[in-house]
Amino acid sequence: MSVLYPEGFLAAGYASGIKESGGLDLSLVALEDSNRAVAAATFTQNLAAAAPVQVSRRNLSLSNQMISAVVLSSGNANAATGKKGLTDAELMCRLVGEGLGVPESSVLVCSTGLIGIAMPTEKLQSGIPRLVKSLGADADDGLKAARAIMTTDTREKLVAIQGSNFRIGGMAKGAAMLAPNMATMLAVLTTDAAVDSADLSRMLAIAVQDSFNRLVIDGCTSTNDTVIALSSSKSAGVDPEEFQTLLTEACKSLAMQMALDAEGATKCVTVTVQRAANEREADLGARKVAVSRLVQCSFYGSDPYWGRLASELGSSGINFDMDKLAVTYGEITVASGGVTVQFDEKALAQYMSGRELKVTCDLGLGSGSASVITTDLSPGYIDENMRTS
Amino acid sequence: MSVLYPEGFLAAGYASGIKESGGLDLSLVALEDSNRAVAAATFTQNLAAAAPVQVSRRNLSLSNQMISAVVLSSGNANAATGKKGLTDAELMCRLVGEGLGVPESSVLVCSTGLIGIAMPTEKLQSGIPRLVKSLGADADDGLKAARAIMTTDTREKLVAIQGSNFRIGGMAKGAAMLAPNMATMLAVLTTDAAVDSADLSRMLAIAVQDSFNRLVIDGCTSTNDTVIALSSSKSAGVDPEEFQTLLTEACKSLAMQMALDAEGATKCVTVTVQRAANEREADLGARKVAVSRLVQCSFYGSDPYWGRLASELGSSGINFDMDKLAVTYGEITVASGGVTVQFDEKALAQYMSGRELKVTCDLGLGSGSASVITTDLSPGYIDENMRTS
Repeated sequence: MSVLYPEGFLAAGYASGIKESGGLDLSLVALEDSNRAVAAATFTQNLAAAAPVQVSRRNLSLSNQMISAVVLSSGNANAATGKKGLTDAELMCRLVGEGLGVPESSVLVCSTGLIGIAMPTEKLQSGIPRLVKSLGADADDGLKAARAIMTTDTREKLVAIQGSNFRIGGMAKGAAMLAPNMATMLAVLTTDAAVDSADLSRMLAIAVQDSFNRLVIDGCTSTNDTVIALSSSKSAGVDPEEFQTLLTEACKSLAMQMALDAEGATKCVTVTVQRAANEREADLGARKVAVSRLVQCSFYGSDPYWGRLASELGSSGINFDMDKLAVTYGEITVASGGVTVQFDEKALAQYMSGRELKVTCDLGLGSGSASVITTDLSPGYIDENMRTS
Repeated sequence: MSVLYPEGFLAAGYASGIKESGGLDLSLVALEDSNRAVAAATFTQNLAAAAPVQVSRRNLSLSNQMISAVVLSSGNANAATGKKGLTDAELMCRLVGEGLGVPESSVLVCSTGLIGIAMPTEKLQSGIPRLVKSLGADADDGLKAARAIMTTDTREKLVAIQGSNFRIGGMAKGAAMLAPNMATMLAVLTTDAAVDSADLSRMLAIAVQDSFNRLVIDGCTSTNDTVIALSSSKSAGVDPEEFQTLLTEACKSLAMQMALDAEGATKCVTVTVQRAANEREADLGARKVAVSRLVQCSFYGSDPYWGRLASELGSSGINFDMDKLAVTYGEITVASGGVTVQFDEKALAQYMSGRELKVTCDLGLGSGSASVITTDLSPGYIDENMRTS
């Protein structure tokens, strides 16, 4: 149930002191026997991309997508840290490279945590060599690697999927700041399925689009988001279609775990817009509804206030005709033809009190349909985010 | 200090029972002696525009912008109410018209409150004739009219400005849902300055753009927003430039009162983006920062977490170079060249604890500059919005 599930990988987690709590804060995923993995990655679109994102982009290219290891740190994002930040991110790769006896350009690096604070370089210098030495293939090593990337996450996020002749494993962290275009999250997926780098890049992009990029929590896009896939290529003759399906499934599983563990969230809600003019408009409408803090407050209050959904759809810029709108919570339709209809209030109250909700807005206009995943907005979110310390 | 400040107006507030609390819920502003006012209005851009918005748009046109009265209700938005909603909004105009002896098409109507619930028609039928009868020109009548449009507002919002030979008065309501393009708010401005309808429309548009449309609280756009300006034309020979300046001032005053009374807000923050590539990008950047709930949480926590501002700017779609960014809270610069700089921590903590903050993001790219007004995000916002009842 981790990055160690497929053949060919090692992992480690280590507490270097970056986190004042003394918790695990350095994580490493590497190939057995100093092998290299075929690698692909997707990075944040934020123009304020953190130093590790810049270094990983470069190393992925320099190595021709043949990667020896991924080193990850938590507690400090190494973002908005200028030239020193780049030097620190490069140092992380170099120390791993030295420890493993591989080129530093074959190492990718990710960081997550506070922005605008210089990395404690000395912790990296003392910690990373120890991190490398502690690499192992026991279940506990994989678990430690997953725990060492947690920030406000309350639990580690793992996935393991068995294909007909290959395996996919993975770990992730991510709590708030989940929005379109890869928002705050780190994920490392591993597989033993032999696949070339161009195919892996294409398939990862599809998987990310259908999973992480469908999470819409607070509309903020982080400086550090990274999803990396590594293949040890131990298993040949893999069916590409099966691999795509299971890679997407793995990403969806991690994405759902993120939503369920989002900062302060008490509910996970799937918002579907159907019969929009087209698919693009369905997507835009669903995202506008999902990210609305007024809508999210009503989810928190278990309040089926469909008028707010209508208001968001009406101001989302898509084609919209109030007189054709129907809104359904779970299986219970509360509005049709743009007005409130009779429904079983008791059954609805019961449904709304649940932890996982589905809301469907039917626009009655065309055949476009899209779903996104969001959470409610609770005071816990504010507690988590009102102070950095 | 109200819509009665200029010459020629009457006002009233009445408790009809729309609000279960029994509070004032019907408001009326009318011309003395069954006169008509030159009128202009700006309405929500939401495609789910409420019935009163639809009826007011039509009546403004039918009357050639010559208006006898504005009737407003609170407690029920008469939005997402289908054909019955339109009938109810028309009824409100008709009842006022009958009471005043003027055509119903010379009456504008506004409503604010919950969405998706049918108006209690019988309360309108019994209440509006009494509302009309209680019209008066005492200070208390103006105050009641302003109180009768409050929903989650904690205080009435009034303005009175003396020009060299004219006056401007006004009242407004508005709490959350303040975003670009006229978000949840109602405002009625009155003046005795003689101005023709085309000029008044143009000048009101400018005033709204520089005031209400610079408020960015939660990014939600309401179904009911309306700003109406009425001129009794009692005072001729008004300088158009002076009138524009003071009309904008009046709108700014009401907008600032809204921000200071926004749901759950404990701070009012002016966010300025300067030296952006151009003015449009400065505006986009400032709005992205201002509406960010992560940024707003940090305001609530009095936390000068400038990295979040950088992250929002970097994902706002505008030109951005992290290495050129400087961030200043009040007069205290915390970041320059994209990295944290030395500053007086005690002085900054003192500043951040204040109720009104200014934050300036200098992009170092061009000459574009823009400011918007926002608030912090507190648990009070969630309390207000988690349940409709």
